[in-house]
Amino acid sequence: MDDTARRDDDPVIALALPAAPLSDAMAAYFAKCDEKLGFVPNVLRAYAFDMAKLEAFVAVYNDLMLAASGLTKLEREMIAVAVSSHNRCYYCLVAHGAAVRALSGDPVLGEQMVTNYRAARLSPRQRAMLDFAVKLTESPWTVADEDRAGLRAVGFSDRDIWDIAAVAAFFNMTNRLASATDMRPNPEYHAQAR
Amino acid sequence: MDDTARRDDDPVIALALPAAPLSDAMAAYFAKCDEKLGFVPNVLRAYAFDMAKLEAFVAVYNDLMLAASGLTKLEREMIAVAVSSHNRCYYCLVAHGAAVRALSGDPVLGEQMVTNYRAARLSPRQRAMLDFAVKLTESPWTVADEDRAGLRAVGFSDRDIWDIAAVAAFFNMTNRLASATDMRPNPEYHAQAR
Amino acid sequence: MDDTARRDDDPVIALALPAAPLSDAMAAYFAKCDEKLGFVPNVLRAYAFDMAKLEAFVAVYNDLMLAASGLTKLEREMIAVAVSSHNRCYYCLVAHGAAVRALSGDPVLGEQMVTNYRAARLSPRQRAMLDFAVKLTESPWTVADEDRAGLRAVGFSDRDIWDIAAVAAFFNMTNRLASATDMRPNPEYHAQAR
Amino acid sequence: MDDTARRDDDPVIALALPAAPLSDAMAAYFAKCDEKLGFVPNVLRAYAFDMAKLEAFVAVYNDLMLAASGLTKLEREMIAVAVSSHNRCYYCLVAHGAAVRALSGDPVLGEQMVTNYRAARLSPRQRAMLDFAVKLTESPWTVADEDRAGLRAVGFSDRDIWDIAAVAAFFNMTNRLASATDMRPNPEYHAQAR
Amino acid sequence: MDDTARRDDDPVIALALPAAPLSDAMAAYFAKCDEKLGFVPNVLRAYAFDMAKLEAFVAVYNDLMLAASGLTKLEREMIAVAVSSHNRCYYCLVAHGAAVRALSGDPVLGEQMVTNYRAARLSPRQRAMLDFAVKLTESPWTVADEDRAGLRAVGFSDRDIWDIAAVAAFFNMTNRLASATDMRPNPEYHAQAR
Amino acid sequence: MDDTARRDDDPVIALALPAAPLSDAMAAYFAKCDEKLGFVPNVLRAYAFDMAKLEAFVAVYNDLMLAASGLTKLEREMIAVAVSSHNRCYYCLVAHGAAVRALSGDPVLGEQMVTNYRAARLSPRQRAMLDFAVKLTESPWTVADEDRAGLRAVGFSDRDIWDIAAVAAFFNMTNRLASATDMRPNPEYHAQAR
Repeated sequence: MDDTARRDDDPVIALALPAAPLSDAMAAYFAKCDEKLGFVPNVLRAYAFDMAKLEAFVAVYNDLMLAASGLTKLEREMIAVAVSSHNRCYYCLVAHGAAVRALSGDPVLGEQMVTNYRAARLSPRQRAMLDFAVKLTESPWTVADEDRAGLRAVGFSDRDIWDIAAVAAFFNMTNRLASATDMRPNPEYHAQAR
Repeated sequence: MDDTARRDDDPVIALALPAAPLSDAMAAYFAKCDEKLGFVPNVLRAYAFDMAKLEAFVAVYNDLMLAASGLTKLEREMIAVAVSSHNRCYYCLVAHGAAVRALSGDPVLGEQMVTNYRAARLSPRQRAMLDFAVKLTESPWTVADEDRAGLRAVGFSDRDIWDIAAVAAFFNMTNRLASATDMRPNPEYHAQAR
Repeated sequence: MDDTARRDDDPVIALALPAAPLSDAMAAYFAKCDEKLGFVPNVLRAYAFDMAKLEAFVAVYNDLMLAASGLTKLEREMIAVAVSSHNRCYYCLVAHGAAVRALSGDPVLGEQMVTNYRAARLSPRQRAMLDFAVKLTESPWTVADEDRAGLRAVGFSDRDIWDIAAVAAFFNMTNRLASATDMRPNPEYHAQAR
Repeated sequence: MDDTARRDDDPVIALALPAAPLSDAMAAYFAKCDEKLGFVPNVLRAYAFDMAKLEAFVAVYNDLMLAASGLTKLEREMIAVAVSSHNRCYYCLVAHGAAVRALSGDPVLGEQMVTNYRAARLSPRQRAMLDFAVKLTESPWTVADEDRAGLRAVGFSDRDIWDIAAVAAFFNMTNRLASATDMRPNPEYHAQAR
Repeated sequence: MDDTARRDDDPVIALALPAAPLSDAMAAYFAKCDEKLGFVPNVLRAYAFDMAKLEAFVAVYNDLMLAASGLTKLEREMIAVAVSSHNRCYYCLVAHGAAVRALSGDPVLGEQMVTNYRAARLSPRQRAMLDFAVKLTESPWTVADEDRAGLRAVGFSDRDIWDIAAVAAFFNMTNRLASATDMRPNPEYHAQAR
Repeated sequence: MDDTARRDDDPVIALALPAAPLSDAMAAYFAKCDEKLGFVPNVLRAYAFDMAKLEAFVAVYNDLMLAASGLTKLEREMIAVAVSSHNRCYYCLVAHGAAVRALSGDPVLGEQMVTNYRAARLSPRQRAMLDFAVKLTESPWTVADEDRAGLRAVGFSDRDIWDIAAVAAFFNMTNRLASATDMRPNPEYHAQAR
């Protein structure tokens, strides 16, 4: 099957953007990734042609996915994957599908988020969260007071609604940056937490 | 994560259809599945409420996916998964995603077919094959002579074109039967050939 | 109007697939078609390049459309045409539109199924049946428990739901095979039961 | 099949709009319709609640479909039906499908326009005409200089392009008025020119 | 910014259709436009290659937008703009966006109709009116009794429903004629009533 | 027209998120906005419930829209508006439509970007830039090597392609955050640079 196999020497993205020297902060951050994950996620290497862009991206990402929130880290990753599935983003589905599997300890849940979140047996709260995220992805111009009221009705606070929206919106950005640049996921993700 | 975990006692489909006694042919076929795969695929158990329907389904399926063809078995599974991805069919993506991984020995290829076949590094022949299958899935009314000519231009015979169309068309059927009945894949598929 | 007229010498499909010798069973079946209908439906002639494929198709088709079911034969044909209308399948609309007219004795009903089933004055039961079939055709990934509950609420059994789904799914297959091969309907259908 | 049969006493539209007294011009026009067709088309009866609206509609319609043009009357009806098929307009498909059959003497052509104009064997000129009309119907915001150039390349003059656009645009209006009011076609159309 | 600036010498439409001599009625009408607006709207100049077409268009337009109706003139313009926004029609959004601003004295309302009518703070009556108009624009084949009932529930009469439908349908026509011909709006509209 | 007028006391967003005390950096930034623009853009006030989120957003935004790039600031704003038009985002169309008018000195160009960028007379370079941005917005999963090659063919460098993609991707994020929260634009934008 030589002709369909992924070539290991594919560059991270399909644009020729030479890496800049890492700033101290970013060198430390890359080292920490390497230590914790065993590799530096390719999205970071993609941004590494420009330290200002890389640092701003990392700040937004870490605040969004790791800072305190009424949403668990797993829930934020579930939104990430459901949105990425709508947008059919190879990079994000591989990288964040692995995160859902790892955080939940449930490989089936990861595969459901990747293929069709509606197939998962979710609580009404989590189902409403993903329905909102995917509606916001598919037709943002139709989101209305009723949609926000629906989230409040299953127990989300206004701050939670911001966080759901912010995560969904963010992956609508990164999905498109990954697709525009043909970003390739690190091979390590594929077998994680299966 | 209790509330999102798949419940192991989910029935195969969401319709109450009591199994009929297996015919001799089907009992032998189920035994063969068990021996070769270690389980009977749930799609077969779903049809087992009626022997005439089960036998007809098995006959079509085996002819389509296993009989002699200008398409390899892997190529037929690639079509199955690319079509099922367009239709976001949880059952078929899990079951046939595993088949792509197993037949190719390439877990990455399986994941690419599931998420977005356009992300795979395919030969022009295989890319044209999947483009045709997905166009036929998405807007069959627009398929025209040019599309068939495009397949011939990369080396497919008219018989091959029939086979591409027949596999793509078949999974447009099974995707919908699985979605209509909320068919659940056998848990064994998830970890296969990762 | 020479340049728009259908050419009578159009082949059944746009692929060159020489007919195989008919098996005894298929020779008998073709003879029966000829006797009952006055012609052999072109979809059968399309499959006649391979007896295994033809026999499997006939088995599935006859079980689905003619075997015992909680759906009348007319209702199964109505589903066939509503689905084919969504998929804009010329072959199936001509052949099965004629069947709706013939089985109902109501040419108007046939034309409504072909153009827009929502224009027909249907019972709530039949309207729910076609709404389900068309939703399953258009966006199978969104079909959910509520949709099945809606069918039960108008009196369908779980077995009926399978049959609605199976007919709708089947025509999503044949519509695509017909479109992929540019299958031409027998001219006899056009004037039937008008 | 009582519950699906069209009720003969359905009103012309689903809005209660009492007919106004016909002006002399409209009385003469209705009489002429009756004499030529054997009935007054329901679209005219729908407008007959207000003579100013009826007269303006008749003026636009007759100029568009009957006045001198580089397009034949049949070609204008073909555009009408292809557009109405995209919009799934029951009224217009029945009424203008009959017109295509009558003007062409070719019932097959009528059925092709109703189901999927791409299935017809058309000259490149007529195919380009319908492709333009349907693109203008489906996504008018994408029509560009290339589309107009494509029409000129198959021999259409700028005046012809106006006429193609004007007929396609007009049926985008009447399709919507018919759908908004649930307009019912005169039963006489169904069997005409089959 | 030379390369993006609109060229002032752009013709009214992208088709070469020499103006016909104005009829007396149309000469008077153009003079009245000039006097009241300071210019002749380009849509009228576009039709001026043929007096029969121009006169019929003017009759329909003036009856629809200016004659007595249960809808205010502003409401009819709001429908015009919401429909034109769905169809992304540059000409109609510029010309009728200005009309909404002028008739309402509310530039914000004009901009909301142009960008997304759902962002406006509308009465339930006006919101239902625009929801109906846009649904009729987007998927006319799905409009049903429930939609008409919804309009009646917020106080619209059957005659009002006709008028909502007729205005929405009309702009589905003119949007497409403008797009097909690349019609350019008079520059005067841009700054009006800001 | 009281019932359609925008209420001046609408809150910035439809979520109750009390403002946090401004950090020194953000206090200085808000003061600078006030001085330069006469107001603080509401998107900044929306984020002001959390300084970490506000600072990260400002860092990304300023780098993207103001830092050195092969794209002019106007071109970046044109992408912002064309993307926001596809997503029908009221907030972004008002705020960035004003920016296009101000930076270009061309109110017509601003209105074209808001309504339909295809109506603008653009250089092939700028047209390709916007076509890519809108394709990436509409169907990111279909972006391929050909699309990147098309940008290179009109003179864009790989770094320019990143910047086009990054701006388009970013507004796919902010459009959704604005829609999810019903963000209201500052009233000052409406009349700017008309």
